[in-house]
Amino acid sequence: AAGWSDIDVRAVDTVRVLAADAVQKVGNGHPGTAMSLAPLAYLLYQQVMRIDPSDPEWIGRDRFVLSCGHSSLTQYIQLYFSGYGLELDDLKALRTWGSLTPGHPEVHHTKGVDITTGPLGSGIASSVGMAMAARRTRGMLDPDAAPGTSPFDHRVWVIASDGDLMEGVSAEAGSLAGHQELGNLIAFYDQNQISIEDDTNVSFTEDVAARYRAYGWHVQEVDWRRGSSPKGDEGTYVEDVDALLAAIEEAKQVTDKPSLIALKTVLAWPAPTKQGTGKAHGSALGDEEVAATKKLLGFDPDKTFEVEDDVIAHTRKVADRGREAHAQWQTSFDSWKSANPEGHTLLERLLGNGLPDGFEDAFPTFEADAKGIASRAASGKILTALGPVMPELWGGSADLAESNNTTMEGQPSFVPDNWQTTAWSGSPYGRVLHFGIRENAMGMALNGIALSGLTRVYGGTFLVFSDYMRPAVRLAAIQKLPVTFVWTHDSVGLGEDGPTHQPIEHLATLRAMPGLDVIRPGDANETAVAWRTILQHFDRPAALVLSRQALPTLDRTEYASADGVAKGAYVLADTDGTPDVILIATGSEVDLAVQARKTLAESGVAARVVSMPCREWFEQQPEDYRNEVLPPSVRARVSVEAATPFGWHDIVGDAGRAIGIDHFGASADGKLLLEKFGFTVEAVVTAAQDSIAAVAAG
Amino acid sequence: AAGWSDIDVRAVDTVRVLAADAVQKVGNGHPGTAMSLAPLAYLLYQQVMRIDPSDPEWIGRDRFVLSCGHSSLTQYIQLYFSGYGLELDDLKALRTWGSLTPGHPEVHHTKGVDITTGPLGSGIASSVGMAMAARRTRGMLDPDAAPGTSPFDHRVWVIASDGDLMEGVSAEAGSLAGHQELGNLIAFYDQNQISIEDDTNVSFTEDVAARYRAYGWHVQEVDWRRGSSPKGDEGTYVEDVDALLAAIEEAKQVTDKPSLIALKTVLAWPAPTKQGTGKAHGSALGDEEVAATKKLLGFDPDKTFEVEDDVIAHTRKVADRGREAHAQWQTSFDSWKSANPEGHTLLERLLGNGLPDGFEDAFPTFEADAKGIASRAASGKILTALGPVMPELWGGSADLAESNNTTMEGQPSFVPDNWQTTAWSGSPYGRVLHFGIRENAMGMALNGIALSGLTRVYGGTFLVFSDYMRPAVRLAAIQKLPVTFVWTHDSVGLGEDGPTHQPIEHLATLRAMPGLDVIRPGDANETAVAWRTILQHFDRPAALVLSRQALPTLDRTEYASADGVAKGAYVLADTDGTPDVILIATGSEVDLAVQARKTLAESGVAARVVSMPCREWFEQQPEDYRNEVLPPSVRARVSVEAATPFGWHDIVGDAGRAIGIDHFGASADGKLLLEKFGFTVEAVVTAAQDSIAAVAAG
Repeated sequence: AAGWSDIDVRAVDTVRVLAADAVQKVGNGHPGTAMSLAPLAYLLYQQVMRIDPSDPEWIGRDRFVLSCGHSSLTQYIQLYFSGYGLELDDLKALRTWGSLTPGHPEVHHTKGVDITTGPLGSGIASSVGMAMAARRTRGMLDPDAAPGTSPFDHRVWVIASDGDLMEGVSAEAGSLAGHQELGNLIAFYDQNQISIEDDTNVSFTEDVAARYRAYGWHVQEVDWRRGSSPKGDEGTYVEDVDALLAAIEEAKQVTDKPSLIALKTVLAWPAPTKQGTGKAHGSALGDEEVAATKKLLGFDPDKTFEVEDDVIAHTRKVADRGREAHAQWQTSFDSWKSANPEGHTLLERLLGNGLPDGFEDAFPTFEADAKGIASRAASGKILTALGPVMPELWGGSADLAESNNTTMEGQPSFVPDNWQTTAWSGSPYGRVLHFGIRENAMGMALNGIALSGLTRVYGGTFLVFSDYMRPAVRLAAIQKLPVTFVWTHDSVGLGEDGPTHQPIEHLATLRAMPGLDVIRPGDANETAVAWRTILQHFDRPAALVLSRQALPTLDRTEYASADGVAKGAYVLADTDGTPDVILIATGSEVDLAVQARKTLAESGVAARVVSMPCREWFEQQPEDYRNEVLPPSVRARVSVEAATPFGWHDIVGDAGRAIGIDHFGASADGKLLLEKFGFTVEAVVTAAQDSIAAVAAG
Repeated sequence: AAGWSDIDVRAVDTVRVLAADAVQKVGNGHPGTAMSLAPLAYLLYQQVMRIDPSDPEWIGRDRFVLSCGHSSLTQYIQLYFSGYGLELDDLKALRTWGSLTPGHPEVHHTKGVDITTGPLGSGIASSVGMAMAARRTRGMLDPDAAPGTSPFDHRVWVIASDGDLMEGVSAEAGSLAGHQELGNLIAFYDQNQISIEDDTNVSFTEDVAARYRAYGWHVQEVDWRRGSSPKGDEGTYVEDVDALLAAIEEAKQVTDKPSLIALKTVLAWPAPTKQGTGKAHGSALGDEEVAATKKLLGFDPDKTFEVEDDVIAHTRKVADRGREAHAQWQTSFDSWKSANPEGHTLLERLLGNGLPDGFEDAFPTFEADAKGIASRAASGKILTALGPVMPELWGGSADLAESNNTTMEGQPSFVPDNWQTTAWSGSPYGRVLHFGIRENAMGMALNGIALSGLTRVYGGTFLVFSDYMRPAVRLAAIQKLPVTFVWTHDSVGLGEDGPTHQPIEHLATLRAMPGLDVIRPGDANETAVAWRTILQHFDRPAALVLSRQALPTLDRTEYASADGVAKGAYVLADTDGTPDVILIATGSEVDLAVQARKTLAESGVAARVVSMPCREWFEQQPEDYRNEVLPPSVRARVSVEAATPFGWHDIVGDAGRAIGIDHFGASADGKLLLEKFGFTVEAVVTAAQDSIAAVAAG
């Protein structure tokens, strides 16, 4: 039993009035869930989770994911109670400029927050990645430890709302988690059955528990409403903390399945008139309701942010529990360390964001070859070469392994023993990931893995299906996570699969996103430098955009070194003196620009070719370098990219020409399509002449 | 029982060799599913679906959705067999330029194709919209008919694959369909358990049938493998068509639940060595395997595209069944018509893409008001005004009704009687849609509704969550569907919810998509003209992007009429003679430009203000008009939009300045954020002066 004393009960009620007050003060926000989940959150922080408030980055800690991020007060108030650094003034500053208590929890911003949440479904989906990372990390550093004895064993705790479980991304992730038998994942489903449109019966009447059982989860139901409606109006509502704790204990015993504990609550309990209503979900309760709630709970309705000294003194004692847990862990860590000196050296490197010895030498170089190789195939060779050198590297695909070339050949799959197949052997500690056809959950899981911090991860699909995972990509960018998205089949050049599979707008849409590096290498050696540079960054996600079709491997004795890729853009082929025109190309169109340069030379036009695989990296170069590559005085410019020209005008300027494709594709041979859609030497040459003429005309 | 004769069996086997041949000829594609689903597809087209090959657009027809669009041959061969217009030469032209048989089925391109599919999950998700549309159409035109007797009653048939059911969008849609009790929806789950990464056990081991039961579907399992593995290697595989038909008949009897028939098949049956393998999923089988399959089935291995005359003569007889069904339907339609003259007039208008009498007069006009009104609130008033005038209009939100202002006040919800709530009353025939927090399924359902053709539909969420529904939006654009996406909370101006909820890149990413009109009106009257113009288009989707915060309602006696919105951009406020600078703004920034113009005037700078709510509409104007609004000679230009400046350079040009925000937002008051991020009169004035100086400098 939880064994709560009066002061624990008072503390929980204090949470409720603080939540009501904080939202009331700023005038907007989400008070309801923070009020009704006060007992659960308190139980987790005070008694259940292995955490140490004095060391929020402790690698042995359990992770906490507030998937219903709008209820950020649920977490902020516990962080305040537990002594993570938040104080009452921070709660008073909720949702205001510069505060430590933004509308939704933000990782790297508020101590004790393990993940940025807010978009529904994202938290619980990322938690699956966190749980996977815990298992992989153990497999990498301490595979032989008995279950539960490794310093790398920890649990991932999630609180999810009705909204989280309506989102498809949580469904994908739930299916994946069940398949992966993630016993270290325990999620609470706050089944208050109220969302912004009030009673969820209007749109959401499925049997959630049965659904999670179908996924292979261990599911328990704890009904505080005892059968009454979401309004709690039959007067039967009892916050049975002991029953909840019993369910938690049972969930901890289940080590071969993720656990869902469906907890039926009354939203905004015990607000007298707004409990169990949509109004209490996303709006301030109003002075009157706040006062009435305070009276009901024995607080002074005229005071705000009232926290009794003995309450905060009591809750802060959790620090002792944390220190103790940490000390225990340290003992097990120290014995692991002495038994595993190599493992410890690796861990130190990973903690320090270091790269392995021999990192740069591990990359293959590709001989010049007119027939060439698809950049996706080059990427596959690079990953396979990195496999033995970088144990922290892992990744896979959303059911397109062979198409995306995302498999490190020779490495085992990350899969429960029973689910190995003829095609894929592996173990729960493997490195080749199989996400199934679940792109968004893949993205969210990659984020969760990156948040766990000790590995480097990538995941692949077709570029066109980056659309399916944009919510995850955006969260990777917001959280500055070093995740690599491998997106192949990067243009109409993919051919016969037709318009639904051919990206047009995707490069532009990804470049438009803040905080994401978009790299489209032009040949195999550019692909190698792209991977090298990506892995040298630890503070941002990257999109690696690769061709389905073969690209000639350029002769680097004739053309500039592919090392220029690291600067985002470089002069690949130059002229003597000032060029008449600059041809700027990415990916599969680099070779087209190279050919057009030759044709232009035949008619006496001196063209420079700039390969521009990554606009973001280029923009970060000093102005001198940028002006060297693209001299402002040379206004005759042509960009060539088999994608929408949207967004290229700022590179080519008013006198320039952007060769692109601004309509959907078609089903036919890829080479033919590129020709039909105007990606020809003649078109580049004509555009160059046009641009030169435009400059001449003033 | 199906009662198949030898010729039916021969026809089904002919499907298999045609599928193998067609993929072999082009050298790529997906033969496997078309082979193993031959019996199911044949049964549906020849015996089950109410269709008339002589009239593919017949409004009384059942709809067919091939959610596994990669298996397009499954449909193409049946269209050929049934006489929809495809011939053997079309099958030979599979996946080639200009053919009627592209890689994935394309609506409006190949007769008999009801929907473009390909992106997995999209078809089955859109089918939910089709089933909803059938019910709403009946409610609009023939509400009192007994079940199954209305000419507007029809079924929606779906074939979905393992991949379809892994995607989150199908999960969202499945939950929604169960909730909506869509008895007219029958889906087959081709459970071959093979995907591109071969045996799906490596990633997908949930109990799909139990999951769909949890959604509230009627689920049946038909196991042709009789317990053997996906490889069929125990030799027990029997294509029991009678069992399948019995399941279909049972599904038809269930009118209060959607039906899933899980059919366990062996992929590529009976290819001797590649059946049940990932290789047979997405690649040509190879000459040898094709020949071996033909031998096995009693076909000449040296012949390709062999169709015996009596086979095609037999299958084409289905035309008789179609004509008969159509004639029967016509009788019921005629009696409906005479009993419902007003309904028939409405139907005629809808079939002719007409707008109602009084359409233009129905729109409210908004008085000038400095305090103003949020464009989302204006939109809500407009929708409410349109409600009584346009019975074909319906829509709702993904659980943000009050935030998106998407409710036509006074109209009933579209919800089963039992699932009405305190907040929402309605009926199965209602007009206010409740999608739950399922944005992508909402988008797909909207597409399905639009494909059904007789209604106009819209759906709302926050702009930032357009990311969740991009796959649906793209399919709306590809299919040229008149769906309206209502996206509110359109900038950092939304305030406290912070970076996860604040769109930055979204306007650019939507503009980059071909075929989508993106409209961001600047005040209430612009919002009215935006809606009017959107509803006047029947051939494309629109994104209506609206503010959370109040926008001043401009005094149209002082400024130009909002009618200019229909042209995408117009001169809102002008100068005498040639302006010194043009300020171009959208949405909430229009007023900022108007204010900056005044400030500039004080220092003697003559600024024109162009409101540019829709770049796509503007680009469609004659060059004269465009040059009138943005004279090429006026190169001093400033764009102002609270979003990424990405993509604005082509409007403002080399001498111009684009005021935008290229980083993520923050949690604070919206007004404060706009100020902090540089959306101030001073910033616009400075940019204008800079641009004027840049022009002067040459």
